[in-house]
Amino acid sequence: MTGGGLKYMNHLNRTINNGSSALIVLSHVEGLRFIDTGRLEYDTVICADAGWKIAQKLGLTPDICIGDYDSSEQPAESLPEDLIRLPAEKDMTDSEAALDLAVARGFRRITIIGGLGGRFDHTMGNLGLLAKYTGKVERICLQDGWNRIFLADPGTHIVRKDGYYYLGTASYGEQVTGLTYRGMKYPLENAVLTNRTTYGGSNEILGEEAEISFRTGRLLISQCNDVPAAIVEAAD
Amino acid sequence: MTGGGLKYMNHLNRTINNGSSALIVLSHVEGLRFIDTGRLEYDTVICADAGWKIAQKLGLTPDICIGDYDSSEQPAESLPEDLIRLPAEKDMTDSEAALDLAVARGFRRITIIGGLGGRFDHTMGNLGLLAKYTGKVERICLQDGWNRIFLADPGTHIVRKDGYYYLGTASYGEQVTGLTYRGMKYPLENAVLTNRTTYGGSNEILGEEAEISFRTGRLLISQCNDVPAAIVEAAD
Repeated sequence: MTGGGLKYMNHLNRTINNGSSALIVLSHVEGLRFIDTGRLEYDTVICADAGWKIAQKLGLTPDICIGDYDSSEQPAESLPEDLIRLPAEKDMTDSEAALDLAVARGFRRITIIGGLGGRFDHTMGNLGLLAKYTGKVERICLQDGWNRIFLADPGTHIVRKDGYYYLGTASYGEQVTGLTYRGMKYPLENAVLTNRTTYGGSNEILGEEAEISFRTGRLLISQCNDVPAAIVEAAD
Repeated sequence: MTGGGLKYMNHLNRTINNGSSALIVLSHVEGLRFIDTGRLEYDTVICADAGWKIAQKLGLTPDICIGDYDSSEQPAESLPEDLIRLPAEKDMTDSEAALDLAVARGFRRITIIGGLGGRFDHTMGNLGLLAKYTGKVERICLQDGWNRIFLADPGTHIVRKDGYYYLGTASYGEQVTGLTYRGMKYPLENAVLTNRTTYGGSNEILGEEAEISFRTGRLLISQCNDVPAAIVEAAD
């Protein structure tokens, strides 16, 4: 490890909570029961649209609720300290409005719960949100019951294993160059990764953490666990 | 509509079946019970890894099974006409091997069932597969119970509604330029769509079909339905 220049992306731990971390809870969360709320870092819980129901299921108390509530009920007035009602027809999703709010209020470490799976236009939009703010805040990720997703700019990044079996990378853009892995089951050295391949999937961090570096492009880093067979069977 | 130069992407209808369409069934399929098999176009069913179990649930008979079967049982020998066993450690996924096989055998219209949701490294890899073969075959899409996903190259494309409520677009690459919608609820004219926004989501085709054209970049077109509330509740 090369020291001060590294970006530690994965300090998802309450102990480093110093008042600048927000949890944004979206209304579609896959694998809800597999989220370990004890490992979430947050000072403030912001719920987008029906995300307040998800927050309740997770035992979290919403601080701010924001949404158009056009296809879901809004929280009871007594519940949130702050309720922001948006118009139904607008140029952004409730999720984007929630994230813009978090950034505007100065939160620098942001975990977005949910937003993967289900409607794929939403999934792609949520990757767009990661892309909008990666590099502008200290840390931002999307997380659900089986996945934790970061987007990285060129440089060297430490990724902690944190109980995720798989680590996959994908080029978010035409290509990533100079891609090098340290501490991974399938190492890479100065490779090119295009967005026309499955090549980056199903790798594994060997120890506690891995080092991933690259020179150009933007890299989507997905830490994943298999969906339990019983869950898949039940959904069929 | 401007006639002969248009690419009809969405003839997912058995009536145009002329012997060159393959259905590739993956092992993770969201919303299985919402797939209308009567609307699927295929001459040959190719199952990747545990996809043969999914095919059986859909009432489809696998013609070829291909996979490493490292984390799932392989089909009984009597089941497939053709069983291709791959090594567990390889530079491609079973899904990619199945698709490569379909293309090598000359199939020109390919529907991939599944591959969205669950492990996100797989999802991104499957988008990579669309990207690998879009433009090289006549038609390729990913489809599950709530989504049908195409990738489009520059030009003019007709997209049929086919029972999908939402249509979302996202730039697959840094940006798409000259993006114009005809027949959509929220029209666009000569717009730029970057991959750092949620802007393309939650649009709707107003009639039977819409026309989407653009000048540069690659556009991911997602046709989606909401996941039924009962399904979401049950999964929590």
